[in-house]
Amino acid sequence: MIDNARILAITGGVGGAKLSLGLAQLLSAEQLAFLVNTGDDFNHLGLHISPDIDTLVYTLSGKANLETGWGRRNEGWEFMAALRELGGEDWFSLGDKDLAMHIERTRLLAEGNSLTDVTTRLATASGISHPIFPMCDDSLRTRVRTADATLDFQTYFVRERCAPVVTGFDFDGAANTKMNPKLVAWLREAPPTGIILCPSNPFVSIDPILQVNGMRDFLAGSDAPVIAVSPVVGGDAIKGPTVKMMQELGIPNTAQSVASHYADFLDGFVLDLEDKQHAESIQKKDIATVVTQTVMRTLDDRVALARDCLKCVQQLSSR
Amino acid sequence: MIDNARILAITGGVGGAKLSLGLAQLLSAEQLAFLVNTGDDFNHLGLHISPDIDTLVYTLSGKANLETGWGRRNEGWEFMAALRELGGEDWFSLGDKDLAMHIERTRLLAEGNSLTDVTTRLATASGISHPIFPMCDDSLRTRVRTADATLDFQTYFVRERCAPVVTGFDFDGAANTKMNPKLVAWLREAPPTGIILCPSNPFVSIDPILQVNGMRDFLAGSDAPVIAVSPVVGGDAIKGPTVKMMQELGIPNTAQSVASHYADFLDGFVLDLEDKQHAESIQKKDIATVVTQTVMRTLDDRVALARDCLKCVQQLSSR
Repeated sequence: MIDNARILAITGGVGGAKLSLGLAQLLSAEQLAFLVNTGDDFNHLGLHISPDIDTLVYTLSGKANLETGWGRRNEGWEFMAALRELGGEDWFSLGDKDLAMHIERTRLLAEGNSLTDVTTRLATASGISHPIFPMCDDSLRTRVRTADATLDFQTYFVRERCAPVVTGFDFDGAANTKMNPKLVAWLREAPPTGIILCPSNPFVSIDPILQVNGMRDFLAGSDAPVIAVSPVVGGDAIKGPTVKMMQELGIPNTAQSVASHYADFLDGFVLDLEDKQHAESIQKKDIATVVTQTVMRTLDDRVALARDCLKCVQQLSSR
Repeated sequence: MIDNARILAITGGVGGAKLSLGLAQLLSAEQLAFLVNTGDDFNHLGLHISPDIDTLVYTLSGKANLETGWGRRNEGWEFMAALRELGGEDWFSLGDKDLAMHIERTRLLAEGNSLTDVTTRLATASGISHPIFPMCDDSLRTRVRTADATLDFQTYFVRERCAPVVTGFDFDGAANTKMNPKLVAWLREAPPTGIILCPSNPFVSIDPILQVNGMRDFLAGSDAPVIAVSPVVGGDAIKGPTVKMMQELGIPNTAQSVASHYADFLDGFVLDLEDKQHAESIQKKDIATVVTQTVMRTLDDRVALARDCLKCVQQLSSR
């Protein structure tokens, strides 16, 4: 199976990065590329911060802090303490080691390099050989509509700790985006055998990627099967505000809702054993299902789920 | 004596900051202001770094690393290690705590604040009440001419460790400078009773300040006595390349040479006991001399030298 695979994994932060790590254990740099959400990139203290790219880079290079789900392991906080002393904005925590990534990225972008080229350079320096493509080189910023105000994503997510009630989302700049040219080249180089939407938040991790001009059409028209892994398990999300958002938006907080969200292009759906009762109704939408353990506690769990995803893709290809 | 003083201290980095600390122990925030060299400010990794302002702020707030003469005490180096891993430029060391200063300064400048206002904010946040004026709000950059090339100051000073033979100096942008408006306001608010050039490198710490349009005329025309403290003691400099530069420029490496360097506006000169044989020839240039211990090892030394300077200023005023 693994010999003939060429997989594009589409991912946001924590949950998606876990499955990404599993896939990277099974597939070579020629067989696997990542397309990553940059809708929650933002400029903070003059630095260009790409939270989901960083989470993926730190996860793949073994530097991620698995307890917090963001930032690096064994991180230092001297900078933050000094910044606080100076009266600087301290609602977004930047670790001493992590800062190197933001400062170097900002410097390279200011030199005129594309985010894609900068990401390649920083990922390569971090020892990662799999291609990592930002969803686009343009500025597309996710904004969260709430009862009171429309908030920048990080303001909603970090500063307000996801407390405001969500009424919708804006994707500023989406109209001016185009698919990542390096991704397009990668797709042309050899057609993918499968596309996997990792278990990330559908609204703020995957949707921004789908908002990039051409992406939704690309997925709908793909010869390779497109599958998704549910980030919702037993009505709960492993991490983050997915379920809270569903409830506030009046969407049932089920794996089925996630499958429906992607129904226009989805060929297969991987859901947890706990949600097996939803499999049948998903299949009725002409989406194949795989019921398996999707909760990833250990590296073995990550690899096992990656294997299940690859098996699903292969079975759909041979239909 | 101290009751009626209103002193402007003109200073560069390490040596100047030591005497500045001594002065700050004796004079209130209404009695003492600092004018600081920014000719060796530079942009590094996208950050605006003001080495002499930082040295003064760290010294006055008790945070300075007295062993290295730059940066903060108890500094962490996690950022530098991570930057090195990413292949970033690591010839200029930025400590984890120190970074907060550069990032916050850069952010505030990008918001359109003047360097003076940013400095006031950061110094105040650091617990400093004495006014600290950058020499100007304009960009004046010291460049070092050497046999092979003209180098940015920090390239010469840090990257090349002062090794290249110096043939002269350029002060890029000097023509477009004007005296710091906040300094001008401070001078108008109440006339100074004395101006003290701290024991800093004449060529790369004090001369850039003198290159600011209006500064040399201001000093030459000042009603208040202008005195300088020799950074050269017994033919040696306590710290930095002052003597090496003198030798390369063909200037005798003596306290007398320093006094001559400022002869057009100098009223008094403070030199070390070790150099007392030079006092007479300096006096012949109509410059009063004070021979005292100028080497500052302890806080008491700093305060004692500050007291000697204030006494000298007072005696010159009453002539």
